[in-house]
Amino acid sequence: MSARPTLIHVAELAGVSLASASRALNGMVASPETVAKVRAAALSLGYIPDATARSLKLGHSLQLAFAVDDVGNPVYVEMMRAIETVVRGSGYRLQVSSTGTDPAETVDLVRSLARGYADGLVISPLRVTDELIVELKRAAVPVVVVGTLPDTVQLDTVQTDSARGVGLAVAHLVESGRRRIGFLNGPLDTTPGMSRRRGFVEAYAAHQLAPAAGSVQEVAADFTVAAGRRAALDLLSRHRDARGALALDALVAANDLLAVGAIHAALELGLQVPEDLAVVGMDDTELAGFFNPGLTSVSLGSAERGRHAAELLLARLSDPARPTRRIVVQPTLVVRASTQTDPTPEGTVR
Amino acid sequence: MSARPTLIHVAELAGVSLASASRALNGMVASPETVAKVRAAALSLGYIPDATARSLKLGHSLQLAFAVDDVGNPVYVEMMRAIETVVRGSGYRLQVSSTGTDPAETVDLVRSLARGYADGLVISPLRVTDELIVELKRAAVPVVVVGTLPDTVQLDTVQTDSARGVGLAVAHLVESGRRRIGFLNGPLDTTPGMSRRRGFVEAYAAHQLAPAAGSVQEVAADFTVAAGRRAALDLLSRHRDARGALALDALVAANDLLAVGAIHAALELGLQVPEDLAVVGMDDTELAGFFNPGLTSVSLGSAERGRHAAELLLARLSDPARPTRRIVVQPTLVVRASTQTDPTPEGTVR
Repeated sequence: MSARPTLIHVAELAGVSLASASRALNGMVASPETVAKVRAAALSLGYIPDATARSLKLGHSLQLAFAVDDVGNPVYVEMMRAIETVVRGSGYRLQVSSTGTDPAETVDLVRSLARGYADGLVISPLRVTDELIVELKRAAVPVVVVGTLPDTVQLDTVQTDSARGVGLAVAHLVESGRRRIGFLNGPLDTTPGMSRRRGFVEAYAAHQLAPAAGSVQEVAADFTVAAGRRAALDLLSRHRDARGALALDALVAANDLLAVGAIHAALELGLQVPEDLAVVGMDDTELAGFFNPGLTSVSLGSAERGRHAAELLLARLSDPARPTRRIVVQPTLVVRASTQTDPTPEGTVR
Repeated sequence: MSARPTLIHVAELAGVSLASASRALNGMVASPETVAKVRAAALSLGYIPDATARSLKLGHSLQLAFAVDDVGNPVYVEMMRAIETVVRGSGYRLQVSSTGTDPAETVDLVRSLARGYADGLVISPLRVTDELIVELKRAAVPVVVVGTLPDTVQLDTVQTDSARGVGLAVAHLVESGRRRIGFLNGPLDTTPGMSRRRGFVEAYAAHQLAPAAGSVQEVAADFTVAAGRRAALDLLSRHRDARGALALDALVAANDLLAVGAIHAALELGLQVPEDLAVVGMDDTELAGFFNPGLTSVSLGSAERGRHAAELLLARLSDPARPTRRIVVQPTLVVRASTQTDPTPEGTVR
């Protein structure tokens, strides 16, 4: 008996004639029952018709995947557009997967690459667990990580320095005469949450900002507008002076969605932005440009990171043996109306 | 001869038929002796059911695809989240494809389903060409369309009545005392563009609104904030009375992104929203809730449409022979600060 399953085995297992098995698998006239039996048999045998085998073979889906925690976050939309532009030029199609915030989902997504639905993966995980790193290293297809991994991990990565980005935001606020600066962060079990927290603590010390009564840091439940609003309401109401006036004059938010939530909180409390409270976001998403007021934001080069990641993936696909690379994109500050009363043209949509 | 043991080896070693081996390993009816023999054989051979081969068979990627023109449009994000919730419950993973505005890209995406990267597709195309319909009808896997198709096309579809939605917007503005209402539409070669235009013309006549000097309709180059801003600047500057005062007191925009662009245009022209100009969007996206001012918007039930589409797809996957269905979701109006000076709580993020 030959080891490679043939149509003969399929027919035998299905209990139908060779002709029926062939018709069933080639979409020719056959009863639904026969089709079902033959498909089940082919499946359990792992039978692959030679013709389809080529196109369905692992590595020939001509699809590349981009996996993020929340496709609703505009930062990923811009990254995705940049990735898409690069991969489309190489005849691949990009598919985006939203894993949600559960690390197990992300691990499962990387594992499921073995199913051959994509020839390569760009992944930007909020939470980098050891289990995820293990899966990334033994992934069935090439993987590029947009994010920060331990130096010991040999994977193509594109990262930024968001701690330095928070530093740019604090420096800008200090230059604009703000001294009582609060920090609205996202979850601390995320890579961005941890590094942005470090950046704020360092900048706070570097500028010798007077420690306010009570922590000037607040952690939102998630990197969303709604969570940002709730956390900002807590932070702002905690920082009232004796006469009930606001004891903070600026907020740095760990991303643009949190910043938008913070502006909502400020407006609800009857505060003016930026007069009473200056707000800086992070990621410089499309939203920062068209929100009202225009949102000053730290650009972490999401489009540039996406482009680099796509190029690294294509290079890896064409040369699996090439040495791994780690590309770092530096942050820049984009000033808009949320931190200055005389906004730049960048404050409006063009 | 392949290195890995297959079911054929197991049956051979156990001395039973392929059918018996398969039944024994799949927990189907088989004598205890057979089960014992087959398990022993499988064990000694280190036989592993060929998961990869399964996945390579068309229809077993365990992926479902959701294809849209622009993943950057928040309306698709909410639709995607609803679809994802449904498909995940059935053990499928959702992948999102952004085709861009080129109809050829969309046609190509549907064709490429033959590569087996997904077991089913939910597609929401802005432009429904005859060529696309042909491809949808002969797609390699089940397809559900979120959008309006000719009645003759036998495909599962989920649609809404956006013409009626525009009617709701106009009626709301008329009730709020507005009479000089303009319409900011998206491209007229799109299904939404055409139906929303029809809705506006019908509502304009129904409310016997005085025809303004020059068309009160403006078509933006695309369904985006930037295109909406440019088109709104044209429309608003075209409608100045003799003393240069604005001759329009309200704008209906064909989606929320166009509405946000219109508000930008109004603010740039020194107008107050809603005092000088009331603005209504469409799709009731997350953005409408957290934009400032809160955007009154016509909900087309994007989450509901997504849920219906996912359920139709799963039903089709489990019963390919079932009759096709067409589900219609009715629009509703969500009033926020952009059309009334005393906003409802919906005007803020909760």
